[in-house]
Amino acid sequence: MTDYFKVSPDARGYVAQRYSQELPFPTRRDVQSIEEGDLLMPCFGEDGLVPCITQDADTGEVLMLGYMNRQALSFTITSGYAHYWSRSRRQLWAKGERSGQSQQVEQILIDDDQDCVLVKVRLTGGASCHVGYRSCFFRELEVSNRSTSFRLRFLEDEKVYDPAQAYGTAKSE
Amino acid sequence: MTDYFKVSPDARGYVAQRYSQELPFPTRRDVQSIEEGDLLMPCFGEDGLVPCITQDADTGEVLMLGYMNRQALSFTITSGYAHYWSRSRRQLWAKGERSGQSQQVEQILIDDDQDCVLVKVRLTGGASCHVGYRSCFFRELEVSNRSTSFRLRFLEDEKVYDPAQAYGTAKSE
Repeated sequence: MTDYFKVSPDARGYVAQRYSQELPFPTRRDVQSIEEGDLLMPCFGEDGLVPCITQDADTGEVLMLGYMNRQALSFTITSGYAHYWSRSRRQLWAKGERSGQSQQVEQILIDDDQDCVLVKVRLTGGASCHVGYRSCFFRELEVSNRSTSFRLRFLEDEKVYDPAQAYGTAKSE
Repeated sequence: MTDYFKVSPDARGYVAQRYSQELPFPTRRDVQSIEEGDLLMPCFGEDGLVPCITQDADTGEVLMLGYMNRQALSFTITSGYAHYWSRSRRQLWAKGERSGQSQQVEQILIDDDQDCVLVKVRLTGGASCHVGYRSCFFRELEVSNRSTSFRLRFLEDEKVYDPAQAYGTAKSE
């Protein structure tokens, strides 16, 4: 058991007892089976991680790119809430465990070579980004006539929540 | 100049002369500037790559996750067509240069810590995935009552194009 279980289950919005152990993901086989078969054989890279794109199930908006280890993907499946591996904190990260901005999973997809996961989620707090915006992709690059001055234009007018209040000064999940 | 320029510009759907040299992306500064500023400061990781989520500009469908080095991101901006770094072939990859399934860029977004790019594209050939489907995410995981047998359900009924015809036997871009 990790520190993570010491967090109040209520605060995370689900019941911790639902968790099972890490799931026994099938071993990867030949390319044909991976790319065109009907069995999940996720590729956890040399660092033990698979990237995960998180998309709003209702609007199709891309919310973030996270990374999952075997435990995070297992818990995402068995809890119904998105879990990631925090590369900065080097620990399992139940999304929303501190901010309250958790993600209820509607659908889990895998790409052709099974080295990227896509989860479609519903936001329980209306936002996903740790800076306070709805999506982490709240800025677009200004491109004019195929050139750019590297300026970014904000796509969201205001923050959904105050990260200072949610996280304190640390401002990270 | 790389081998890539030897490919017929017509086959790629754009004019190669549009290419400029690699763009001088601004150096990354403090966290505040990166996360809340209006200047692009992309993080190319230790491998020189930044992950890129590619989304259909019209439908919101997530099509693929690719990786870009400085050159690929530069060319994506200056050509208006998505370019990636192929990790398997270890070379710049003008999406569609062989399959004809290129991606016209509508919008380029960056996430909060500027270590992930999101491009919204229009598909020139109606598909993106090298297996022949529209999206690389053509399978979802079957989950029932918070458990899974790791079975995948196909979300697309049939392929958009025949990859064997597009790529020959190699079946990779």
